[in-house]
Amino acid sequence: MTVDVAGAAAALAAANNFLILTHRRPDGDTTGCAGALCRGLRQLGKTAYVLENPEITKRYAPMITPCYPPADFVPQYIVTTDIAEYKLFSDNAKQYEGKIDLVIDHHRSNPLFGVKNLVRTDAGGCAEVIYDLLMALGVRLTGDIAECLYIGVSTDTGCFKFSNTTAHTHAVAAACLSAGIDGGEINRALFETKSRPRFDMERIVFDTMEFTEDGAIALAMLWRRDIDNTGADMDDLDSIASLTRQVEGVQIGLTLTENADGTVKASVRTTKEMDASAICKKVGGGGHIRAAGASFDCGMDEARERLLAAAREQYHAKQ
Amino acid sequence: MTVDVAGAAAALAAANNFLILTHRRPDGDTTGCAGALCRGLRQLGKTAYVLENPEITKRYAPMITPCYPPADFVPQYIVTTDIAEYKLFSDNAKQYEGKIDLVIDHHRSNPLFGVKNLVRTDAGGCAEVIYDLLMALGVRLTGDIAECLYIGVSTDTGCFKFSNTTAHTHAVAAACLSAGIDGGEINRALFETKSRPRFDMERIVFDTMEFTEDGAIALAMLWRRDIDNTGADMDDLDSIASLTRQVEGVQIGLTLTENADGTVKASVRTTKEMDASAICKKVGGGGHIRAAGASFDCGMDEARERLLAAAREQYHAKQ
Repeated sequence: MTVDVAGAAAALAAANNFLILTHRRPDGDTTGCAGALCRGLRQLGKTAYVLENPEITKRYAPMITPCYPPADFVPQYIVTTDIAEYKLFSDNAKQYEGKIDLVIDHHRSNPLFGVKNLVRTDAGGCAEVIYDLLMALGVRLTGDIAECLYIGVSTDTGCFKFSNTTAHTHAVAAACLSAGIDGGEINRALFETKSRPRFDMERIVFDTMEFTEDGAIALAMLWRRDIDNTGADMDDLDSIASLTRQVEGVQIGLTLTENADGTVKASVRTTKEMDASAICKKVGGGGHIRAAGASFDCGMDEARERLLAAAREQYHAKQ
Repeated sequence: MTVDVAGAAAALAAANNFLILTHRRPDGDTTGCAGALCRGLRQLGKTAYVLENPEITKRYAPMITPCYPPADFVPQYIVTTDIAEYKLFSDNAKQYEGKIDLVIDHHRSNPLFGVKNLVRTDAGGCAEVIYDLLMALGVRLTGDIAECLYIGVSTDTGCFKFSNTTAHTHAVAAACLSAGIDGGEINRALFETKSRPRFDMERIVFDTMEFTEDGAIALAMLWRRDIDNTGADMDDLDSIASLTRQVEGVQIGLTLTENADGTVKASVRTTKEMDASAICKKVGGGGHIRAAGASFDCGMDEARERLLAAAREQYHAKQ
């Protein structure tokens, strides 16, 4: 069943021995939600833990690792935070499939897999929902809870930059800053620091980027040899395809990545004038209107020719 | 005299025929403040204009150019927004020195050069002060006023990222979004678009950046020939020196820029472990603890040697 904040708060108030789950490839929102909820429940005198996430990274670890349960903990009430579907459960969470008491989320695609489901699709970060819930429970916004909530909200909204940022997002951020956290220092670590491999990957994008059609189309080539040299992992490659589109005048940004087996992954990003999905369809791919992709069995050079041809075709059709 | 928001609102309510001044090298805050104040005063039935700013750029022009006065306008009440001192007056504003009725600002260094002065140093953007003032005046937050205020606040706080962002900053942003503006689209234009010369400058920083002391010191070399090739202007070079420090592990970021006459400008940026000012003092410069600078009469290569030596000396002294 679907519940509102008051309904979810009543359910939590009536229960105890909570185990909170976070999603695969944990980000700032799922870990911030779990960390804040766990600490909030404890403030109310409850027993609460966050299930170990085997993929936790150094950046977000401080929010949940102090909340990991002892070996003999027997949970009685299972909550998921920011998990859109079972596929995003870590392997050690699979045992709880079908046994979730409360789903807290903000993804439109959530199939409501809990006994109770608090899903607010208008929330920029799921941490906004946790904030409302903690306030309804009468939890005091301490510094450590505020820091978890702030990181959840800011990472999911691109530090309040993306279009999913609402007045409520800002209201939650205001409350967190009022609790005394150092937003400037948190943001410097989250948004103004690049890993060395990330830096090297960006350098490759910059170095290989070529422009055609008077700068309306940009293309970057990420060769396997170069990627391997940087030691970049998935985090470092995250959103690298969006760099091409950031240059003024570029309407179609193309990024070709050579896979280990010599095949090629293409990422297409467009501004509102162009349709990334239509370009990718021409070469056997697909996706969303502003972000789409395709795969090529040929090598990089041929993939470049074919993708550029598809992009040029759309560009001139739209003139 | 110093006034609070209520005092400034009373003064504005009692006056008419306003001329609003913005500062040299106009940014989003000074133009957002002037644009919002002018439109707010007009909503109250007043006559108000913004003085032409000869240095206005394409990005911020829409906020003030529709507010430029007719040739025969005779102002009776002069207001400055976000102007810290007379030195920041445009040439065409010099005639108003000593004649400012109301100073609205947030700079600590403001000498209070108006008859009345509303200076709130706790405001991240001066637009926050304008917001409070318009609310006190009973102005309705229309879309165009909200857009001016939002741009003022977001540009001065690095889109809510910097440490000058407060709960009040977020509250103003929340009010602006509630007025129906498209924050996501505004931010994409302001923060996710790089001019082609800016892109080329960043490529040069990336290409020339070298690391020493296990990656704790990074140095970029901006040769005049390369700068000239990009066609970069002052806007494009803005904050380019901070790029070196953004790489994880870098504690001292050094940027050397070759001037047209062959002399060299050095910019030093540090994390909290190091003292940029102390490094620059060793080579005859100075500045703040995290951002400092120096000048060299020698060429780039010798400047590189001397600056690196000073940086290494501090780095090892702090180990």
